Amino acid sequence: NRENFIHLCNPHLEKMREDILYHFALGTGTHDFPVLFGDVKFVCVGGSPSRMKAFITYIAEELGLGGPGCDYPNICAGTDRYAMYKVGPVLSVSVSTSLNQIRDTKQDWVKMYVLCVWKQSINYIVELCLFLFTAGLEPGSVVITKQSVDATFKPQFEQVILGKTVVRSTNLDEQLAKELMQCSKEIGQFNTVIGNTMCTLDFYEGQGRLDGAICLYNEEEKLQYLKEAYDSGVRNIEMESSVFAAMCNLSGVKAAVVCVTLLNRLEGDQISSSHDVLVEYQQRPQKLVGYFIKKSLGKI
Amino acid sequence: NRENFIHLCNPHLEKMREDILYHFALGTGTHDFPVLFGDVKFVCVGGSPSRMKAFITYIAEELGLGGPGCDYPNICAGTDRYAMYKVGPVLSVSVSTSLNQIRDTKQDWVKMYVLCVWKQSINYIVELCLFLFTAGLEPGSVVITKQSVDATFKPQFEQVILGKTVVRSTNLDEQLAKELMQCSKEIGQFNTVIGNTMCTLDFYEGQGRLDGAICLYNEEEKLQYLKEAYDSGVRNIEMESSVFAAMCNLSGVKAAVVCVTLLNRLEGDQISSSHDVLVEYQQRPQKLVGYFIKKSLGKI
Repeated sequence: NRENFIHLCNPHLEKMREDILYHFALGTGTHDFPVLFGDVKFVCVGGSPSRMKAFITYIAEELGLGGPGCDYPNICAGTDRYAMYKVGPVLSVSVSTSLNQIRDTKQDWVKMYVLCVWKQSINYIVELCLFLFTAGLEPGSVVITKQSVDATFKPQFEQVILGKTVVRSTNLDEQLAKELMQCSKEIGQFNTVIGNTMCTLDFYEGQGRLDGAICLYNEEEKLQYLKEAYDSGVRNIEMESSVFAAMCNLSGVKAAVVCVTLLNRLEGDQISSSHDVLVEYQQRPQKLVGYFIKKSLGKI
Repeated sequence: NRENFIHLCNPHLEKMREDILYHFALGTGTHDFPVLFGDVKFVCVGGSPSRMKAFITYIAEELGLGGPGCDYPNICAGTDRYAMYKVGPVLSVSVSTSLNQIRDTKQDWVKMYVLCVWKQSINYIVELCLFLFTAGLEPGSVVITKQSVDATFKPQFEQVILGKTVVRSTNLDEQLAKELMQCSKEIGQFNTVIGNTMCTLDFYEGQGRLDGAICLYNEEEKLQYLKEAYDSGVRNIEMESSVFAAMCNLSGVKAAVVCVTLLNRLEGDQISSSHDVLVEYQQRPQKLVGYFIKKSLGKI
């Protein structure tokens, strides 16, 4: 039963007269969630607004729901921090590439899901990333995340709540990862692996880069760290997946994280591929998830 | 000597042929930093792009540099995640309200400053916030931050670098805080205090809210925590100041954090003031910093 499957871990919400989702500029007093979102079955989350708009356009075409020149309005136009687009059963949500931003908005998504799914169902939430690191993998490889690990390679997400440290599990849905892997085999256009994703708290020092404003370690120490990461099973580094995984776990939502690697960090810190090559790489997670959605809907 | 004052803590940058500031879509190979930014003396950082555009328009008028209908192009138009506007010696930069985003971009700012200030000088970096909590302060109060403290009320910022925890100090410039306080007295239009700002890692559980998707504590525990925060000197809660303070400290940049409180968290979690009242509150930090800039330039 789906109502038992996705749930809010917050008894206080029932007492609230109106529930405002700050980060999306949506609220129960101003928006009818079941009408707006009641048919959503797939939520896809990614980086920039323009990328997620491109994704909804792509999905609309793939599902035969969009025509040429169709425009998709931003459902969160009341804020200029996030964007949300919808076509048929697919919601495409942008958050910037940072752990905290996804953490904040994720609380609002989870609330939104529960508000809108009432008697409905959301099947899957998939995070579409396109970040960075590989070691031993060629750039352009798609990584489906098995576990999101922290910067010490543990599959956990630590947060401070009321001044005390709370540790949450960051496992992702194993079956969903396997289904996505099978989809990639059927597409047969790019290299895909299932591996761990390391989720760091910042982009420069947190990922061992040498090109930030502050860097107090040397190249040898950096490479040693990245090799330890690889040996522990890490195939990808980004900044969002751990809170995403932790909150989906807590809420009982099946979730996956699909990334494409743009750079082999054992070889450098700055991206050297051409713009066109990068654009093609960035379409790979979208293509994989698009195929998965079509297949799930019985359209393949 | 200003060159000794602002510095990059990264010896590796000198060896790089081209330095790309990912988060701003700027690079030394494509942009002439001294020409673009060489005259900048004040950097003001805030939340949303539209707010920071409003700020640059306001400052332009205050400094007599803008006319009616003047438009200020986004210097970071190459990315849709951040925005940067400039008029005369003032740079206005948007980052979304999250610690990690400010942490990432802050590395790029610091780099930019050093790249562009070469033989020039940046005098001040001021963060303009407008977030949330007070306890005992009326909403609309402006808080100038003395120390940015973490969720256990310690003036420090922890990050994991190459798998090891590093702790950095988050003190802000005391003299600059006093000068801003003096400016507020001269303006005489709103209540202003110097106090500590608690910088949390997330918006809901991290700030003890009862209205997130997940909440596993009760109201009594929440109030107990907020009272402890108040007793330790906290007058404001937000999500950016600690990394901002830590990095300005490390780089030798004089920095301040100016916030306005929108809500007394001891009384609730959702904002109840009207839109017009909130808009006026949000202008207070801008007004204070604008006055400070004018005074620093000898225009008052």
